[in-house]
Amino acid sequence: MNTALATRIEADPTVPAIRITREFDAPPSAVYRAHVDPELVVQWLGPRRLTMTLQRWEPETGGGYRYTHVGEDGVEHHFFGSFHELRPDERIVQTFTYAGFPEGVALETMTLVPLPDGRTRLEGFSLCDSFEARDGMLHSGMDEGVVEGYERLDEILS
Amino acid sequence: MNTALATRIEADPTVPAIRITREFDAPPSAVYRAHVDPELVVQWLGPRRLTMTLQRWEPETGGGYRYTHVGEDGVEHHFFGSFHELRPDERIVQTFTYAGFPEGVALETMTLVPLPDGRTRLEGFSLCDSFEARDGMLHSGMDEGVVEGYERLDEILS
Repeated sequence: MNTALATRIEADPTVPAIRITREFDAPPSAVYRAHVDPELVVQWLGPRRLTMTLQRWEPETGGGYRYTHVGEDGVEHHFFGSFHELRPDERIVQTFTYAGFPEGVALETMTLVPLPDGRTRLEGFSLCDSFEARDGMLHSGMDEGVVEGYERLDEILS
Repeated sequence: MNTALATRIEADPTVPAIRITREFDAPPSAVYRAHVDPELVVQWLGPRRLTMTLQRWEPETGGGYRYTHVGEDGVEHHFFGSFHELRPDERIVQTFTYAGFPEGVALETMTLVPLPDGRTRLEGFSLCDSFEARDGMLHSGMDEGVVEGYERLDEILS
């Protein structure tokens, strides 16, 4: 395994946030496009065992989104949020709620840092409103979806 | 001065957030409406010396907003964000950025608690991404706008 492609998921020591770091063997423009193009995002976001459908997808500053993940058991998981700000090829700031826990909201910032040789480092920062909520998200099994999702994203980018 | 109508603005001790508490002599439905109705919000949000105009105002879950405050000196202050979730008469969750400091984003939750005699307690929670950003917001002069804004809101509600 190429360790440069391993996903790091860490609890921030001072604020109730999760930090995610992942490198991709593709330029920022390609990684960015895979996060906003509705035909691409459904192909990689989340674990392989779930199928993603978009009910709303407005990837622009001030737009909203709503999507569903469904598994072979037919159980549906709904998510919604807003695109606070999109800076093409650089940064996406969005809100995120799992509808099964509607009181919880995370503020997520994704920054794309260009690296040599046309590579990209993705830096994710998911801010929760309490340390309890942050730890709950960290132990919710999110790592499965994040790690496997980025592996699927590698396949799309290659 | 009726101390029940005083605005409390406090730094949260454990997370990088500002907590605001204010009571209104009006029911939650009226306080809520004053936060979403575009013709009302421009009459009270912010200090009296500034005039507010809306460039975008979509008070619905997933909608966006953008507005300007301008003073007699003609200097314009721009703000934008998203309405993450609106629950009529109960709760508004939104993002907030002052365009003069575009890297900063706050995630703001306003909860309206019904009190006896048709009164309402507004509980605001503004979450920043670092303690430095929170302290910067706290010392930016925001208290002038919040305190005076809620006094103007009293006048609209009465």
